[in-house]
Amino acid sequence: MKTRILAARDIKQIVSHVGLNELMDQVIEELKVAFKAQVRSGRYVVPKRDGFNYEHPQVGLVEWMPLMRAKEEVLMKMVGYHPANPRDQALPTVLSTLFSFDTRNGHLQLIADGTLATSIRTGAASAVASQLLACPKSQTLGLIGAGAQAVTQLHALSRVFPISEVFVFDLDQENQRSFEGRCDLLGLEQTTFTLVDNPESAAACADILCTITSVAVGAGPVFPSCDLKPSVHINAVGSDFPGKTEIPGSVLNQSFVCPDFRAQAVVEGECQQLEESHIGPELSVLVDDPASFEHLRGQMTVFDSTGFAVEDHAVLAVIQRHAERLKLGQDLQLESIRDPLDPYFGLDNDKDGVTQLGLTGAPKIRKQG
Amino acid sequence: MKTRILAARDIKQIVSHVGLNELMDQVIEELKVAFKAQVRSGRYVVPKRDGFNYEHPQVGLVEWMPLMRAKEEVLMKMVGYHPANPRDQALPTVLSTLFSFDTRNGHLQLIADGTLATSIRTGAASAVASQLLACPKSQTLGLIGAGAQAVTQLHALSRVFPISEVFVFDLDQENQRSFEGRCDLLGLEQTTFTLVDNPESAAACADILCTITSVAVGAGPVFPSCDLKPSVHINAVGSDFPGKTEIPGSVLNQSFVCPDFRAQAVVEGECQQLEESHIGPELSVLVDDPASFEHLRGQMTVFDSTGFAVEDHAVLAVIQRHAERLKLGQDLQLESIRDPLDPYFGLDNDKDGVTQLGLTGAPKIRKQG
Repeated sequence: MKTRILAARDIKQIVSHVGLNELMDQVIEELKVAFKAQVRSGRYVVPKRDGFNYEHPQVGLVEWMPLMRAKEEVLMKMVGYHPANPRDQALPTVLSTLFSFDTRNGHLQLIADGTLATSIRTGAASAVASQLLACPKSQTLGLIGAGAQAVTQLHALSRVFPISEVFVFDLDQENQRSFEGRCDLLGLEQTTFTLVDNPESAAACADILCTITSVAVGAGPVFPSCDLKPSVHINAVGSDFPGKTEIPGSVLNQSFVCPDFRAQAVVEGECQQLEESHIGPELSVLVDDPASFEHLRGQMTVFDSTGFAVEDHAVLAVIQRHAERLKLGQDLQLESIRDPLDPYFGLDNDKDGVTQLGLTGAPKIRKQG
Repeated sequence: MKTRILAARDIKQIVSHVGLNELMDQVIEELKVAFKAQVRSGRYVVPKRDGFNYEHPQVGLVEWMPLMRAKEEVLMKMVGYHPANPRDQALPTVLSTLFSFDTRNGHLQLIADGTLATSIRTGAASAVASQLLACPKSQTLGLIGAGAQAVTQLHALSRVFPISEVFVFDLDQENQRSFEGRCDLLGLEQTTFTLVDNPESAAACADILCTITSVAVGAGPVFPSCDLKPSVHINAVGSDFPGKTEIPGSVLNQSFVCPDFRAQAVVEGECQQLEESHIGPELSVLVDDPASFEHLRGQMTVFDSTGFAVEDHAVLAVIQRHAERLKLGQDLQLESIRDPLDPYFGLDNDKDGVTQLGLTGAPKIRKQG
């Protein structure tokens, strides 16, 4: 009974074989399947995530996102968020790992690198929300924040909209300058990249706007309350921690706001800034009944994307299917399962065995208390 | 930046090299060190564990036990508890894995099998509690429940008391019959094993009593309110779930009750049955100041052992030290860390790269909604 390991290398192989576009398309479709299953049968039990956050030795947090798929699986995602990683340690801001447990016996059946999976599903969720809430003719994309997540936002949106121009802003000029080059592999030959000097320029030009920043707690919003297109759709992706918000309250109050996971969004997302009554239904509800929400595509709308374990389940399902088909990954005998009643691994107890164990007969009596 | 894997095989190697007795002695001492650090400096942040429990496909649960060691590490233990495992699947009731994350950057630095570690630290915690609360001359041990955990309870207690006789009860007669043989490797040549027909016989004869059963929720207690020795110390180990208790309420009410982790014990442990005012201080407080509690050694006492993440940290610290010294374990490149700003692994974008990625130039426009 082994544990399947899907390391970064294996997932890179999947990307190479399947192709980024096909993979993104499949994740977008799988998200819709998972959301519908959740609305129709409550297939997933998803507690709010929890975690530790700290100021030392670095500003950061480690959090856990559990999910149970009824009768089949417990999925645990562990996520590290350390905004100084790229600058100080040449590491991604977000590192994550996925762990799947079999509910028949508690066996840890899978460990998978979650970093790519997280990026892809976060992009895919914005694509799903934008299909439902943005004007179908959307062509211009504003990006506030041009780090790793911005690449996957553009990628996902380019799969469902004919993006002709991207307006890019980042406080870090090097991030901003390098963005187009980092998007080369998306093959967006019809798309113009325009670097803008301030976030309001990216916001004002956008049919669809994505905010994907590492703004500090209390330091938002990341663009001022400015003129926006009246039918703009905003994917608010960076807000994922109490006090961390990116969108001006006035914009939220003018908009239809759809959270990914309401219970979490009111604690960590843009919904922190809203009255309960102003918060719309969750994305899964829209996915299940798009016609009822079609009228919103001409209005100002916000998808409050805090990150939802159902999305992680969906992307992992796609990755696992490809890994099995391509015979990728390695199997590790991690757990001790030799004898269910012997905690000590069935070590032999012949004379040599006793010696080998360092047992010397009579127990040592230690000082009491 | 790799992830160190300590699999069951590696931990078996540690046991072989260090010796079971020496390992248990070291864990007992390390527990005391960790408990003192917690009392004196609040070194660990420990939320209550949480988890999913279910009736299908098997009665069981998967739970998570997080711990943060200030400024250094986040430790996550995942635990599966499936009482039908030994009977139906020849697997241990408890399977568990430990995950350590570096708070400097969120890196998953260690994955270790937790099954042996859990057994040893659970035994060691009972030894620590018994040293503080049992009569120093204790010689007879009662065991109610003779599964895997009973072996480590006996082992740990035999390291700190001259156990001359063990009274063993288990509802499963095969477990009961096989127990002495499963303890052969402990080398307890001075110890007599007596199988008893009912739990009250094990309880009545015991200077120290351990309850380590898989009793179902609501089905406790596991022995009746019977005559016990007036200075008996009970390690109540099996109670670890809402509604699951092993000890008669009348016994608890006559006893000094010391929980491992009060906030958890009142939800999952024997403390569920007690008024708040009747619950004593946590084990760590006793460890830090044994003299103040010495008078309890002639009284009836209960250690309410629900399982505490600080214990997991302590046993892992011992295991890691030995693994490093013995150069055990393997390193795995699990996480994708190649380029902090590139979610797609730095895949090349020369012509072959584009082909390889399956990118076909213009984005596919998908049906809206």
